[in-house]
Amino acid sequence: MLDIYAFATPNSVKVTIALEELDLPYTLHGVNVRKGEQKTPEFLALNPNGKVPVLVETDEARRMFVLTESAAILVFLAEKTGQLLPTGAQSRARVFEQLFFHASGLSPAFGQSGFFQKFAAAPEPIALERFSTEAKRTLHVLDTILAKSWFVAGEEFTIADIAHFGWLWRRNFPNITLDDTPHVARWYADIESRPAVQRGIARIEALAP
Amino acid sequence: MLDIYAFATPNSVKVTIALEELDLPYTLHGVNVRKGEQKTPEFLALNPNGKVPVLVETDEARRMFVLTESAAILVFLAEKTGQLLPTGAQSRARVFEQLFFHASGLSPAFGQSGFFQKFAAAPEPIALERFSTEAKRTLHVLDTILAKSWFVAGEEFTIADIAHFGWLWRRNFPNITLDDTPHVARWYADIESRPAVQRGIARIEALAP
Repeated sequence: MLDIYAFATPNSVKVTIALEELDLPYTLHGVNVRKGEQKTPEFLALNPNGKVPVLVETDEARRMFVLTESAAILVFLAEKTGQLLPTGAQSRARVFEQLFFHASGLSPAFGQSGFFQKFAAAPEPIALERFSTEAKRTLHVLDTILAKSWFVAGEEFTIADIAHFGWLWRRNFPNITLDDTPHVARWYADIESRPAVQRGIARIEALAP
Repeated sequence: MLDIYAFATPNSVKVTIALEELDLPYTLHGVNVRKGEQKTPEFLALNPNGKVPVLVETDEARRMFVLTESAAILVFLAEKTGQLLPTGAQSRARVFEQLFFHASGLSPAFGQSGFFQKFAAAPEPIALERFSTEAKRTLHVLDTILAKSWFVAGEEFTIADIAHFGWLWRRNFPNITLDDTPHVARWYADIESRPAVQRGIARIEALAP
Protein backbone atom coordinates (compact mmCIF):
# COMPACT_ATOMS: atom_id res chain seq x y z
CA MET A 1 0.00 0.00 0.00
CA LEU A 2 1.35 3.40 -0.96
CA ASP A 3 0.49 6.66 0.80
CA ILE A 4 1.77 9.94 -0.60
CA TYR A 5 1.94 13.14 1.46
CA ALA A 6 2.12 16.05 -0.93
CA PHE A 7 0.81 19.45 -2.06
CA ALA A 8 0.50 21.36 -5.34
CA THR A 9 4.27 21.86 -5.63
CA PRO A 10 6.90 21.20 -8.33
CA ASN A 11 8.43 18.34 -6.35
CA SER A 12 5.12 16.72 -5.39
CA VAL A 13 3.77 16.57 -8.95
CA LYS A 14 6.79 14.48 -9.98
CA VAL A 15 5.60 11.68 -7.70
CA THR A 16 1.95 11.62 -8.78
CA ILE A 17 3.04 11.71 -12.44
CA ALA A 18 5.38 8.74 -11.87
CA LEU A 19 2.66 6.78 -10.04
CA GLU A 20 0.17 7.44 -12.85
CA GLU A 21 2.76 6.50 -15.52
CA LEU A 22 3.50 3.27 -13.63
CA ASP A 23 -0.21 2.61 -12.99
CA LEU A 24 0.38 2.03 -9.28
CA PRO A 25 -2.53 2.61 -6.88
CA TYR A 26 -1.91 5.17 -4.11
CA THR A 27 -3.69 7.28 -1.54
CA LEU A 28 -2.88 10.98 -1.72
CA HIS A 29 -2.84 13.09 1.48
CA GLY A 30 -2.70 16.88 1.26
CA VAL A 31 -0.12 18.74 3.39
CA ASN A 32 -0.91 22.43 3.00
CA VAL A 33 2.53 24.06 2.84
CA ARG A 34 0.91 27.51 2.50
CA LYS A 35 -0.38 27.00 6.04
CA GLY A 36 2.94 25.54 7.25
CA GLU A 37 1.58 22.03 7.79
CA GLN A 38 4.96 20.59 6.73
CA LYS A 39 6.52 22.04 9.92
CA THR A 40 4.09 20.50 12.45
CA PRO A 41 5.55 17.95 14.94
CA GLU A 42 3.44 15.19 13.32
CA PHE A 43 4.85 15.88 9.88
CA LEU A 44 8.42 16.38 11.12
CA ALA A 45 8.20 12.90 12.70
CA LEU A 46 7.60 11.60 9.16
CA ASN A 47 10.23 13.83 7.51
CA PRO A 48 12.69 15.68 9.79
CA ASN A 49 13.59 17.81 6.76
CA GLY A 50 10.06 19.31 6.79
CA LYS A 51 9.35 18.94 3.08
CA VAL A 52 6.82 17.31 0.78
CA PRO A 53 6.56 14.85 -0.92
CA VAL A 54 6.86 11.81 1.35
CA LEU A 55 6.09 8.21 0.34
CA VAL A 56 4.97 5.64 2.91
CA GLU A 57 4.88 2.00 1.81
CA THR A 58 3.08 -0.35 4.20
CA ASP A 59 3.52 -4.10 3.78
CA GLU A 60 1.16 -6.91 4.78
CA ALA A 61 2.74 -7.10 8.25
CA ARG A 62 1.93 -3.37 8.63
CA ARG A 63 5.61 -2.41 8.57
CA MET A 64 5.99 1.13 7.27
CA PHE A 65 8.81 2.29 5.01
CA VAL A 66 9.03 6.08 4.88
CA LEU A 67 10.93 7.71 2.01
CA THR A 68 11.58 11.43 1.38
CA GLU A 69 13.20 13.40 -1.48
CA SER A 70 11.15 13.40 -4.69
CA ALA A 71 13.99 12.10 -6.89
CA ALA A 72 14.78 9.26 -4.46
CA ILE A 73 11.08 8.34 -4.60
CA LEU A 74 11.27 8.33 -8.43
CA VAL A 75 14.29 5.99 -8.35
CA PHE A 76 12.57 3.72 -5.78
CA LEU A 77 9.39 3.44 -7.86
CA ALA A 78 11.35 2.86 -11.09
CA GLU A 79 13.48 0.10 -9.54
CA LYS A 80 10.40 -1.45 -7.86
CA THR A 81 8.61 -1.79 -11.20
CA GLY A 82 11.56 -2.15 -13.59
CA GLN A 83 10.24 0.78 -15.64
CA LEU A 84 11.30 4.35 -16.57
CA LEU A 85 14.98 3.67 -15.74
CA PRO A 86 17.09 1.74 -18.28
CA THR A 87 19.34 -1.13 -17.17
CA GLY A 88 22.42 -0.47 -19.36
CA ALA A 89 25.25 1.18 -17.40
CA GLN A 90 25.65 4.19 -19.69
CA SER A 91 21.92 4.76 -20.27
CA ARG A 92 21.29 4.62 -16.52
CA ALA A 93 24.15 7.04 -15.91
CA ARG A 94 22.51 9.54 -18.29
CA VAL A 95 19.31 9.36 -16.23
CA PHE A 96 21.16 9.93 -12.94
CA GLU A 97 23.17 12.77 -14.56
CA GLN A 98 19.91 14.55 -15.38
CA LEU A 99 18.30 13.75 -12.01
CA PHE A 100 21.27 15.35 -10.24
CA PHE A 101 21.56 18.24 -12.70
CA HIS A 102 17.91 18.92 -11.92
CA ALA A 103 18.24 18.50 -8.13
CA SER A 104 21.42 20.55 -7.71
CA GLY A 105 21.15 22.94 -10.65
CA LEU A 106 17.88 23.80 -12.35
CA SER A 107 15.59 23.18 -9.38
CA PRO A 108 17.36 25.37 -6.77
CA ALA A 109 17.91 28.10 -9.39
CA PHE A 110 14.20 28.18 -10.28
CA GLY A 111 13.19 28.09 -6.61
CA GLN A 112 15.58 30.80 -5.40
CA SER A 113 14.87 33.03 -8.41
CA GLY A 114 11.14 32.84 -7.68
CA PHE A 115 11.70 33.53 -3.98
CA PHE A 116 13.79 36.67 -4.52
CA GLN A 117 11.37 37.96 -7.19
CA LYS A 118 8.14 37.26 -5.31
CA PHE A 119 8.57 36.48 -1.62
CA ALA A 120 11.60 38.41 -0.31
CA ALA A 121 10.65 41.31 2.00
CA ALA A 122 12.86 43.71 0.00
CA PRO A 123 14.56 43.61 -3.42
CA GLU A 124 18.17 42.42 -3.26
CA PRO A 125 19.85 43.10 -6.62
CA ILE A 126 22.79 40.68 -6.37
CA ALA A 127 20.55 37.77 -5.36
CA LEU A 128 17.91 38.69 -7.96
CA GLU A 129 20.50 38.81 -10.74
CA ARG A 130 22.39 35.73 -9.56
CA PHE A 131 19.40 33.38 -9.49
CA SER A 132 17.58 34.80 -12.49
CA THR A 133 20.77 34.36 -14.58
CA GLU A 134 21.30 30.85 -13.22
CA ALA A 135 17.68 29.83 -13.92
CA LYS A 136 18.03 30.95 -17.55
CA ARG A 137 21.50 29.40 -17.89
CA THR A 138 20.38 25.97 -16.64
CA LEU A 139 17.33 26.13 -18.94
CA HIS A 140 19.67 26.75 -21.89
CA VAL A 141 21.87 23.82 -20.83
CA LEU A 142 18.72 21.67 -20.94
CA ASP A 143 17.91 23.08 -24.38
CA THR A 144 21.36 22.02 -25.63
CA ILE A 145 20.68 18.48 -24.40
CA LEU A 146 17.19 18.38 -25.96
CA ALA A 147 18.63 19.58 -29.29
CA LYS A 148 20.43 16.22 -29.47
CA SER A 149 17.89 13.74 -28.09
CA TRP A 150 14.13 13.45 -27.89
CA PHE A 151 14.02 13.00 -24.12
CA VAL A 152 16.35 14.50 -21.51
CA ALA A 153 18.38 11.31 -21.00
CA GLY A 154 18.23 9.77 -24.48
CA GLU A 155 15.54 8.35 -26.77
CA GLU A 156 13.41 6.85 -23.99
CA PHE A 157 11.00 8.55 -21.59
CA THR A 158 12.46 8.14 -18.07
CA ILE A 159 12.11 9.44 -14.53
CA ALA A 160 14.59 12.20 -15.51
CA ASP A 161 11.91 13.69 -17.80
CA ILE A 162 9.45 13.60 -14.91
CA ALA A 163 11.94 15.37 -12.62
CA HIS A 164 12.64 18.25 -15.04
CA PHE A 165 8.95 18.51 -15.92
CA GLY A 166 8.02 19.23 -12.29
CA TRP A 167 9.81 22.57 -12.16
CA LEU A 168 9.09 23.53 -15.78
CA TRP A 169 5.40 23.07 -14.99
CA ARG A 170 5.89 25.78 -12.33
CA ARG A 171 8.08 28.07 -14.46
CA ASN A 172 5.81 31.08 -13.87
CA PHE A 173 7.16 31.27 -10.31
CA PRO A 174 10.64 32.39 -11.48
CA ASN A 175 9.11 34.16 -14.52
CA ILE A 176 10.68 31.76 -16.99
CA THR A 177 9.29 31.29 -20.50
CA LEU A 178 10.24 28.75 -23.16
CA ASP A 179 10.36 31.37 -25.95
CA ASP A 180 14.16 31.19 -26.37
CA THR A 181 14.51 27.44 -25.81
CA PRO A 182 12.65 25.77 -28.71
CA HIS A 183 13.86 22.26 -27.88
CA VAL A 184 12.63 22.53 -24.30
CA ALA A 185 9.31 23.91 -25.64
CA ARG A 186 8.95 20.93 -28.02
CA TRP A 187 9.80 18.47 -25.22
CA TYR A 188 7.49 20.16 -22.69
CA ALA A 189 4.49 19.98 -25.04
CA ASP A 190 5.20 16.31 -25.69
CA ILE A 191 5.45 15.39 -21.99
CA GLU A 192 2.42 17.49 -21.06
CA SER A 193 0.29 15.67 -23.66
CA ARG A 194 0.80 12.26 -22.03
CA PRO A 195 -2.46 11.08 -20.41
CA ALA A 196 -0.69 9.85 -17.25
CA VAL A 197 1.04 13.23 -16.87
CA GLN A 198 -2.34 14.97 -17.12
CA ARG A 199 -3.77 12.64 -14.47
CA GLY A 200 -0.78 13.26 -12.16
CA ILE A 201 -1.22 17.03 -12.52
CA ALA A 202 -4.98 16.83 -11.91
CA ARG A 203 -4.52 14.82 -8.70
CA ILE A 204 -1.97 17.31 -7.35
CA GLU A 205 -3.93 20.41 -8.37
CA ALA A 206 -7.00 19.07 -6.55
CA LEU A 207 -5.06 19.44 -3.27
CA ALA A 208 -5.00 23.26 -3.57
CA PRO A 209 -8.52 24.43 -4.39
CA MET B 1 40.66 3.85 -18.69
CA LEU B 2 39.30 6.61 -16.46
CA ASP B 3 40.17 10.29 -16.77
CA ILE B 4 38.88 12.75 -14.19
CA TYR B 5 38.71 16.50 -14.80
CA ALA B 6 38.55 18.23 -11.44
CA PHE B 7 39.84 20.88 -9.06
CA ALA B 8 40.17 21.32 -5.28
CA THR B 9 36.40 21.69 -4.82
CA PRO B 10 33.78 20.00 -2.60
CA ASN B 11 32.24 18.17 -5.56
CA SER B 12 35.55 17.06 -7.08
CA VAL B 13 36.89 15.50 -3.88
CA LYS B 14 33.88 13.18 -3.76
CA VAL B 15 35.05 11.52 -6.98
CA THR B 16 38.72 11.04 -6.00
CA ILE B 17 37.63 9.66 -2.61
CA ALA B 18 35.28 7.16 -4.31
CA LEU B 19 37.98 6.08 -6.77
CA GLU B 20 40.47 5.57 -3.94
CA GLU B 21 37.90 3.65 -1.85
CA LEU B 22 37.15 1.44 -4.88
CA ASP B 23 40.86 1.09 -5.72
CA LEU B 24 40.27 2.03 -9.36
CA PRO B 25 43.17 3.52 -11.33
CA TYR B 26 42.56 6.97 -12.85
CA THR B 27 44.34 9.93 -14.38
CA LEU B 28 43.54 13.26 -12.75
CA HIS B 29 43.50 16.47 -14.83
CA GLY B 30 43.35 19.86 -13.13
CA VAL B 31 40.78 22.40 -14.34
CA ASN B 32 41.55 25.64 -12.51
CA VAL B 33 38.11 27.06 -11.72
CA ARG B 34 39.74 30.10 -10.04
CA LYS B 35 41.03 31.05 -13.49
CA GLY B 36 37.70 30.18 -15.17
CA GLU B 37 39.06 27.17 -17.06
CA GLN B 38 35.67 25.43 -16.66
CA LYS B 39 34.13 28.04 -19.01
CA THR B 40 36.55 27.61 -21.94
CA PRO B 41 35.10 26.27 -25.23
CA GLU B 42 37.21 23.10 -24.85
CA PHE B 43 35.80 22.35 -21.42
CA LEU B 44 32.23 23.32 -22.36
CA ALA B 45 32.46 20.76 -25.20
CA LEU B 46 33.06 18.15 -22.45
CA ASN B 47 30.43 19.55 -20.06
CA PRO B 48 27.98 22.15 -21.43
CA ASN B 49 27.07 22.90 -17.80
CA GLY B 50 30.61 24.29 -17.23
CA LYS B 51 31.32 22.48 -13.98
CA VAL B 52 33.84 20.05 -12.51
CA PRO B 53 34.11 17.13 -11.93
CA VAL B 54 33.79 15.24 -15.22
CA LEU B 55 34.57 11.55 -15.72
CA VAL B 56 35.69 10.20 -19.10
CA GLU B 57 35.77 6.43 -19.54
CA THR B 58 37.58 5.23 -22.68
CA ASP B 59 37.13 1.63 -23.78
CA GLU B 60 39.47 -0.57 -25.80
CA ALA B 61 37.90 0.62 -29.06
CA ARG B 62 38.71 4.20 -27.93
CA ARG B 63 35.03 5.06 -27.50
CA MET B 64 34.67 7.79 -24.89
CA PHE B 65 31.84 7.96 -22.38
CA VAL B 66 31.63 11.39 -20.74
CA LEU B 67 29.73 11.75 -17.45
CA THR B 68 29.08 14.90 -15.40
CA GLU B 69 27.47 15.58 -11.99
CA SER B 70 29.52 14.29 -9.03
CA ALA B 71 26.67 12.24 -7.54
CA ALA B 72 25.88 10.59 -10.90
CA ILE B 73 29.58 9.69 -11.15
CA LEU B 74 29.40 8.15 -7.64
CA VAL B 75 26.36 6.04 -8.65
CA PHE B 76 28.09 4.98 -11.90
CA LEU B 77 31.27 3.89 -10.10
CA ALA B 78 29.30 2.08 -7.37
CA GLU B 79 27.18 0.17 -9.89
CA LYS B 80 30.25 -0.60 -12.05
CA THR B 81 32.04 -2.23 -9.12
CA GLY B 82 29.09 -3.51 -7.07
CA GLN B 83 30.41 -1.63 -4.02
CA LEU B 84 29.35 1.28 -1.75
CA LEU B 85 25.68 0.98 -2.79
CA PRO B 86 23.57 -1.80 -1.24
CA THR B 87 21.33 -3.99 -3.39
CA GLY B 88 18.24 -4.26 -1.13
CA ALA B 89 15.41 -1.96 -2.26
CA GLN B 90 15.01 -0.11 1.05
CA SER B 91 18.75 0.17 1.80
CA ARG B 92 19.38 1.54 -1.68
CA ALA B 93 16.52 4.00 -1.29
CA ARG B 94 18.15 5.36 1.89
CA VAL B 95 21.36 6.01 -0.07
CA PHE B 96 19.50 7.84 -2.85
CA GLU B 97 17.49 9.79 -0.25
CA GLN B 98 20.76 11.11 1.22
CA LEU B 99 22.36 11.72 -2.19
CA PHE B 100 19.39 13.89 -3.18
CA PHE B 101 19.11 15.57 0.23
CA HIS B 102 22.77 16.50 -0.21
CA ALA B 103 22.43 17.61 -3.86
CA SER B 104 19.26 19.66 -3.44
CA GLY B 105 19.52 20.69 0.23
CA LEU B 106 22.80 20.80 2.13
CA SER B 107 25.09 21.40 -0.85
CA PRO B 108 23.33 24.46 -2.38
CA ALA B 109 22.77 25.92 1.11
CA PHE B 110 26.49 25.64 1.97
CA GLY B 111 27.50 27.02 -1.44
CA GLN B 112 25.10 29.99 -1.47
CA SER B 113 25.81 30.83 2.17
CA GLY B 114 29.56 30.95 1.43
CA PHE B 115 28.98 33.05 -1.69
CA PHE B 116 26.90 35.72 0.05
CA GLN B 117 29.31 35.86 3.00
CA LYS B 118 32.55 35.94 1.01
CA PHE B 119 32.13 36.70 -2.68
CA ALA B 120 29.09 38.98 -3.12
CA ALA B 121 30.04 42.55 -4.08
CA ALA B 122 27.84 43.97 -1.28
CA PRO B 123 26.14 42.52 1.79
CA GLU B 124 22.53 41.50 1.17
CA PRO B 125 20.84 40.78 4.52
CA ILE B 126 17.91 38.67 3.33
CA ALA B 127 20.15 36.40 1.26
CA LEU B 128 22.79 36.20 4.02
CA GLU B 129 20.20 35.21 6.60
CA ARG B 130 18.30 32.86 4.29
CA PHE B 131 21.29 30.72 3.29
CA SER B 132 23.10 30.83 6.62
CA THR B 133 19.91 29.60 8.35
CA GLU B 134 19.38 26.92 5.72
CA ALA B 135 23.00 25.69 5.96
CA LYS B 136 22.64 25.28 9.73
CA ARG B 137 19.17 23.74 9.41
CA THR B 138 20.30 21.08 6.91
CA LEU B 139 23.34 20.32 9.08
CA HIS B 140 20.99 19.71 12.03
CA VAL B 141 18.79 17.45 9.90
CA LEU B 142 21.94 15.43 9.15
CA ASP B 143 22.75 15.35 12.87
CA THR B 144 19.30 13.88 13.59
CA ILE B 145 19.99 11.13 11.05
CA LEU B 146 23.47 10.41 12.45
CA ALA B 147 22.03 10.19 15.97
CA LYS B 148 20.23 7.04 14.81
CA SER B 149 22.77 5.32 12.55
CA TRP B 150 26.55 5.13 12.26
CA PHE B 151 26.65 6.21 8.61
CA VAL B 152 24.32 8.63 6.82
CA ALA B 153 22.27 5.90 5.09
CA GLY B 154 22.43 3.12 7.66
CA GLU B 155 25.12 0.90 9.19
CA GLU B 156 27.25 0.62 6.05
CA PHE B 157 29.66 3.12 4.52
CA THR B 158 28.21 4.15 1.14
CA ILE B 159 28.55 6.75 -1.61
CA ALA B 160 26.08 8.90 0.40
CA ASP B 161 28.75 9.36 3.10
CA ILE B 162 31.22 10.42 0.41
CA ALA B 163 28.73 12.97 -0.99
CA HIS B 164 28.03 14.64 2.37
CA PHE B 165 31.73 14.53 3.29
CA GLY B 166 32.66 16.63 0.25
CA TRP B 167 30.87 19.74 1.46
CA LEU B 168 31.58 19.19 5.16
CA TRP B 169 35.28 19.07 4.26
CA ARG B 170 34.80 22.63 2.89
CA ARG B 171 32.60 23.88 5.76
CA ASN B 172 34.88 26.88 6.40
CA PHE B 173 33.54 28.46 3.22
CA PRO B 174 30.04 29.02 4.73
CA ASN B 175 31.58 29.44 8.25
CA ILE B 176 30.01 26.25 9.54
CA THR B 177 31.39 24.43 12.59
CA LEU B 178 30.43 21.03 14.00
CA ASP B 179 30.29 22.32 17.61
CA ASP B 180 26.50 22.00 17.92
CA THR B 181 26.15 18.79 15.91
CA PRO B 182 28.01 16.10 17.90
CA HIS B 183 26.81 13.21 15.75
CA VAL B 184 28.03 14.89 12.57
CA ALA B 185 31.35 15.61 14.36
CA ARG B 186 31.71 11.91 15.35
CA TRP B 187 30.88 10.79 11.81
CA TYR B 188 33.18 13.35 10.15
CA ALA B 189 36.19 12.25 12.24
CA ASP B 190 35.45 8.63 11.38
CA ILE B 191 35.21 9.25 7.62
CA GLU B 192 38.25 11.54 7.59
CA SER B 193 40.38 8.82 9.25
CA ARG B 194 39.86 6.35 6.40
CA PRO B 195 43.13 5.90 4.44
CA ALA B 196 41.35 6.03 1.06
CA VAL B 197 39.63 9.29 2.05
CA GLN B 198 43.00 10.78 2.97
CA ARG B 199 44.43 9.71 -0.39
CA GLY B 200 41.44 11.19 -2.24
CA ILE B 201 41.88 14.51 -0.43
CA ALA B 202 45.65 14.56 -1.06
CA ARG B 203 45.18 13.98 -4.80
CA ILE B 204 42.62 16.82 -5.05
CA GLU B 205 44.59 19.26 -2.89
CA ALA B 206 47.67 18.74 -5.08
CA LEU B 207 45.73 20.39 -7.94
CA ALA B 208 45.70 23.78 -6.16
CA PRO B 209 49.24 24.53 -4.95
